[in-house]
Amino acid sequence: MSSQPNQQIAPDVRFGKGVRLFGFVNLYGCEIGDDVKIGTFVEIQKGAKIGHRCKISSHTFICEGVTLEDEVFVGHGVTFINDRYPRATNGAGSLQTEADWKCVPTLVKRGAAIGSGSTLLCGITIGERAMVGAGSVVTKDVPAGAIVAGNPARVMKSSHGKTASAGTVP
Amino acid sequence: MSSQPNQQIAPDVRFGKGVRLFGFVNLYGCEIGDDVKIGTFVEIQKGAKIGHRCKISSHTFICEGVTLEDEVFVGHGVTFINDRYPRATNGAGSLQTEADWKCVPTLVKRGAAIGSGSTLLCGITIGERAMVGAGSVVTKDVPAGAIVAGNPARVMKSSHGKTASAGTVP
Amino acid sequence: MSSQPNQQIAPDVRFGKGVRLFGFVNLYGCEIGDDVKIGTFVEIQKGAKIGHRCKISSHTFICEGVTLEDEVFVGHGVTFINDRYPRATNGAGSLQTEADWKCVPTLVKRGAAIGSGSTLLCGITIGERAMVGAGSVVTKDVPAGAIVAGNPARVMKSSHGKTASAGTVP
Repeated sequence: MSSQPNQQIAPDVRFGKGVRLFGFVNLYGCEIGDDVKIGTFVEIQKGAKIGHRCKISSHTFICEGVTLEDEVFVGHGVTFINDRYPRATNGAGSLQTEADWKCVPTLVKRGAAIGSGSTLLCGITIGERAMVGAGSVVTKDVPAGAIVAGNPARVMKSSHGKTASAGTVP
Repeated sequence: MSSQPNQQIAPDVRFGKGVRLFGFVNLYGCEIGDDVKIGTFVEIQKGAKIGHRCKISSHTFICEGVTLEDEVFVGHGVTFINDRYPRATNGAGSLQTEADWKCVPTLVKRGAAIGSGSTLLCGITIGERAMVGAGSVVTKDVPAGAIVAGNPARVMKSSHGKTASAGTVP
Repeated sequence: MSSQPNQQIAPDVRFGKGVRLFGFVNLYGCEIGDDVKIGTFVEIQKGAKIGHRCKISSHTFICEGVTLEDEVFVGHGVTFINDRYPRATNGAGSLQTEADWKCVPTLVKRGAAIGSGSTLLCGITIGERAMVGAGSVVTKDVPAGAIVAGNPARVMKSSHGKTASAGTVP
């Protein structure tokens, strides 16, 4: 593993071989596969699983409940989510704890690419080799091989090469 | 107060009791209420006021002019703004100083939740218990209890349970 | 040059006079003009060129291939891109290297302002004194003096003061 100074890496992170970590990362309780590259200002929470040969670019947040299969690209400034209706406090007015919410999982399948600046709602699956255009807000499943973009993200091009009529391919 | 290493906290920050600060935060001149939790890679500028029992998630930027009342949730990668027409330099071609712009305030009322990846324009009020969907760009006031989403954000559901016809609830 | 602790600045960065750097920045191989101000949590990659008297705000990512002319304002949480179809691995299934992709440049001309939370696709030019509204996703060239906003960004107001019919000015 190669790394840089200015990192916070909890002792419970499980690393594969050949991982490359850049500066200012915050990792805890997660599982990182072989030959993964993780950029600066990245946070990966406990319970997240990153497959082999993934690239996680700078300023990205990967939360509990997210699984990336192998060879997934995640751009810069990408935000994952695991709670549909977040609140600061519970009904009793005290700060929420882990008992007050249910983690909703997200799955990104092999070889998919998530464009920079995207936000992915939870409870969805991004299909194999799918591509999420930069700046998208993904609110539902993305079929394998499809290209989606926009807010909310819509299919711009399916894996059969058909181009959607709505929206502009960024 | 509990904290971690790798922080920049100016001596003029005013903290309430029981504040929890994570790593890589940059705080200066702001006021933080009791039992607030502030995630990694968060910057809070001078003059910002954070009420009691708020959660500020990682990668979020809270600027001068922003007031969060009590029990506000702010997701990951949320960006606030305080200048409608920013420029690098003033008419004379030298770098702008504080004399060259007017700070436009934003108010987030009690119990509201701002979804991850959202951007909030300035001069607006987010009503009590309102919810801003992830990835939204909020350009105007949000009524109390409403759910808004999209770019620009539109009301998806009002506090009376009426669902808007336009847009997709993320 | 004035700076703060907690920085990663590679020895190959070329600085002009009077540069101000805040904490938690990651700079390498880039060129920074005179009197530039760079906020916290900013990454600027090799090959990027920043003109004189620019302001780069916190949480922003400026990649290889980006050129900012003089007096450009870049807001908080802005993401630039240099690859239209990013993938983690090449056809042979090993992690991509610099040989596997072509850097697509982006040019931001003198005096332009890029609003916070924006994402800029690559291969585009932002004209002189143009303004990109906060939270925009810019997919094509922006004319000089125009104001654009939305996802994808559309012209809200041209330099001649004509207001577009589509979209809402944020």
